[in-house]
Amino acid sequence: MARIEARLEELGLVLPEPAQLPPGVRLPFAKVNVRGNMAYVSGHGPQNDDGTLSAPSGKVGKDVTVDEAYELARKTALSMLSSLQRELGDLDRITGWGRIFGMVNSAPGFTQQPAVINGCSDLIYDVFGPDVGRHARSAVGMAELPFGDGIAVEIEADVLID
Amino acid sequence: MARIEARLEELGLVLPEPAQLPPGVRLPFAKVNVRGNMAYVSGHGPQNDDGTLSAPSGKVGKDVTVDEAYELARKTALSMLSSLQRELGDLDRITGWGRIFGMVNSAPGFTQQPAVINGCSDLIYDVFGPDVGRHARSAVGMAELPFGDGIAVEIEADVLID
Amino acid sequence: MARIEARLEELGLVLPEPAQLPPGVRLPFAKVNVRGNMAYVSGHGPQNDDGTLSAPSGKVGKDVTVDEAYELARKTALSMLSSLQRELGDLDRITGWGRIFGMVNSAPGFTQQPAVINGCSDLIYDVFGPDVGRHARSAVGMAELPFGDGIAVEIEADVLID
Repeated sequence: MARIEARLEELGLVLPEPAQLPPGVRLPFAKVNVRGNMAYVSGHGPQNDDGTLSAPSGKVGKDVTVDEAYELARKTALSMLSSLQRELGDLDRITGWGRIFGMVNSAPGFTQQPAVINGCSDLIYDVFGPDVGRHARSAVGMAELPFGDGIAVEIEADVLID
Repeated sequence: MARIEARLEELGLVLPEPAQLPPGVRLPFAKVNVRGNMAYVSGHGPQNDDGTLSAPSGKVGKDVTVDEAYELARKTALSMLSSLQRELGDLDRITGWGRIFGMVNSAPGFTQQPAVINGCSDLIYDVFGPDVGRHARSAVGMAELPFGDGIAVEIEADVLID
Repeated sequence: MARIEARLEELGLVLPEPAQLPPGVRLPFAKVNVRGNMAYVSGHGPQNDDGTLSAPSGKVGKDVTVDEAYELARKTALSMLSSLQRELGDLDRITGWGRIFGMVNSAPGFTQQPAVINGCSDLIYDVFGPDVGRHARSAVGMAELPFGDGIAVEIEADVLID
């Protein structure tokens, strides 16, 4: 078994099935777009194991607590890994994370975006270690995010591969 | 005639003139910044053929309908192609789209950002085909966008060139 | 003395100390992440010389004027240079700026984001000159930004290095 897949198993982490989108949604682009040694990872949201979007949705600071949102950011990282695995075949092909851009659906006055997106950063470091997992990051508050009443967290990334 | 320029003509698409900014606006940066085999495309808005900003402006979901915003995202793609053509000389130099970041000026509760930015994605695939046109994407809701009462759509991109 | 450091001295510019974060904030990622010839610069905010966050904070257009926000964007550029200098050792290693993504904490109806982020763009051109300093840019309005009642400006960047 590949090293990263073994590490996921060791941590008890399961990657979700491909995203199941709400009816009527059309997304004409690649979840992961490989160009040379770059894998551009589209904005992902939190998913359940079966690929459906994870609750709770809505605004962090009003509809969603910081602890819930941390968990959603962690699930979003797993969604990204799931898409990367399908595109790359093997997560060991990832030689280093570049940047992640963490977007938090923010209620007025909510400013703890970093504490939310830590759910993604912590998982990346846990799985990939401090060298390959090292990444630059922004964690910021969006006015709205897509789907239904709005997913609580969306994250995109630039990843280096061999 | 170059291949992509021929394809634009075949589709009846006209690239707008260089952006004509509102009075007093100073933008001290490059619309397209080439570094090695990367072309970083600055945030663009929808333009009319003469380069002026396209109406309607304001918040999608309140001042602008989804259908209108789709068309504005399509025009924004043409604005980006216009800037790329001026900088690169020839759009055939584009070897692949990397990522596009689609920003929708969103009224409270508006969550159909993907349906809006599809206007850009559809045009890129129509013009460049599924290999070169393939891109990663996020489509998200901004609190405000620049100029007057705010352009409805702004899109930036990373593009690979030879 | 290195060329860029000499230029900073010539302009009377002082880079701030490393960021001093508010109590309880944990940021598990790299301020600057070098991967090959790319330096991914995390979202930075405006800092005082001692590394503390610069006032005023809050929403531009309500709590913060455009002129104040321009100065905060300028200080944010200095924060980024400070992090780059610590990571790279020498700012002369920067061969070209790629893109900057300028995020303005925007009051409802505030649309002068470009005039704010010009504080960063102007400083980069002043320090690095028109070739190395050339960059693509977006300047957009966020719903919320991190820390306290929210920093007024946050900027991330992709920078090329040798």
